[in-house]
Amino acid sequence: MAGPSALHRDDALPLYQQIFLALRDEILSGRRPLGENLPTEHDLSALYGVSRITARRALDELAGHGLVERRRRIGTRVIFRAPATPIEANIDQAIESLIAFGRDTQVRVVALAEEPAADHIAPRLGLAPGAATLRALRVRYLDDAPLGAIESHVPLHLSAGLTRERLTETPLLEILRESGHAIGGGTQTIAAIAADPARAALLGTEPRAPLIRIERVVHDLAGKPLLLTIAEYRGDRYRLALDLHGAARPAAD
Amino acid sequence: MAGPSALHRDDALPLYQQIFLALRDEILSGRRPLGENLPTEHDLSALYGVSRITARRALDELAGHGLVERRRRIGTRVIFRAPATPIEANIDQAIESLIAFGRDTQVRVVALAEEPAADHIAPRLGLAPGAATLRALRVRYLDDAPLGAIESHVPLHLSAGLTRERLTETPLLEILRESGHAIGGGTQTIAAIAADPARAALLGTEPRAPLIRIERVVHDLAGKPLLLTIAEYRGDRYRLALDLHGAARPAAD
Repeated sequence: MAGPSALHRDDALPLYQQIFLALRDEILSGRRPLGENLPTEHDLSALYGVSRITARRALDELAGHGLVERRRRIGTRVIFRAPATPIEANIDQAIESLIAFGRDTQVRVVALAEEPAADHIAPRLGLAPGAATLRALRVRYLDDAPLGAIESHVPLHLSAGLTRERLTETPLLEILRESGHAIGGGTQTIAAIAADPARAALLGTEPRAPLIRIERVVHDLAGKPLLLTIAEYRGDRYRLALDLHGAARPAAD
Repeated sequence: MAGPSALHRDDALPLYQQIFLALRDEILSGRRPLGENLPTEHDLSALYGVSRITARRALDELAGHGLVERRRRIGTRVIFRAPATPIEANIDQAIESLIAFGRDTQVRVVALAEEPAADHIAPRLGLAPGAATLRALRVRYLDDAPLGAIESHVPLHLSAGLTRERLTETPLLEILRESGHAIGGGTQTIAAIAADPARAALLGTEPRAPLIRIERVVHDLAGKPLLLTIAEYRGDRYRLALDLHGAARPAAD
């Protein structure tokens, strides 16, 4: 919950909009479930240190988006049912759950083309800048709703078999493996970013929506990079699950 | 890069603001490094399908934030040096890097109080709703800059030793261990969310800034939950690193 000092009074967003967005996020994520009563105008204005007009406008905005119902004397009630928990992709070593994830989702190939490696891509693939690569941009769907955009870069001389048809049906790593490349391992980083307008449009969300970004370099048994993947998944539809093992110590926090 | 169809024309944010924010993110993240020339007004207006006035206003806004320098006939140049790569926390089994992470960061205890377990907290700790817990809210800093907010819930009868003083000096899990609880393992999920106004204020960022959210339940050797932690780290300052091992197959993508 936000306190009176929590609003950014010099922010580009008007105060009512900041309150609207905070409450909207709580409703969409299920933290304020269907049927719950929201704070009254009076409570909201005290909580955020704003006028009642501002508080009312935030609640009106929620009603305008079909998220709440406002009834005189009774108050404001959530009328939106948050979707089921976002899909969880296990990034642990549970191969079966990964295969199941691949099977349950669909892929659309948005772009597939040869491209000279950009300066920030080349070194991660062990290539000289400008070296030939194949770049694929795919969107992954669950039940016809976009989950994420996956941009992959493969050195061109390793990219045999990566056709639009096969990429639609088969995970990229499986194609690489079938082409004779043994997967040795890799490294990945996980970050949260704000969607730029192009990604937002591709994923059917709004600009600045939070995305989870997974960058992964996969190499062969000799440590030679085979693939750089930059996947950006919608924060509201996708999250990662990871077991902690007793042998290791969980992160400092 | 965004294309002409990428802007949300019915979005609450004006078009110039959407373009400004997209370019700002690219500069802050280092994707448009110090010294790089931005597209001209003319190019931007063609790229996004907006008027030159709108394109100019986006560039003016960047200049007003001290990110670019605009010079007639020469163009718009990035004058901001992106900070070094965000800190990476290894969530793999590399104990040494976790300890180093704990040592390199500082903690401030913002709140520490007994609290009845909320409905969404209780079952995850194996408690009845309303059961007594200790709730701690801490902010973790690196070089005096806030990295993330960490909310922890511990069943009250297990919370001996969790004082404000000790939490400032020692990781919570270490205190639990020193109090005689053997850590058996746990589960965690990783998601991207938008900062609500309160979190944004606590972390010195703006509302709706992307945060990486790590929820972790840690249990003892018998599988009994010891701790629920909800950590929210700034997307621009923190990311997770995770090795992929050859034995396992990387995620479907």
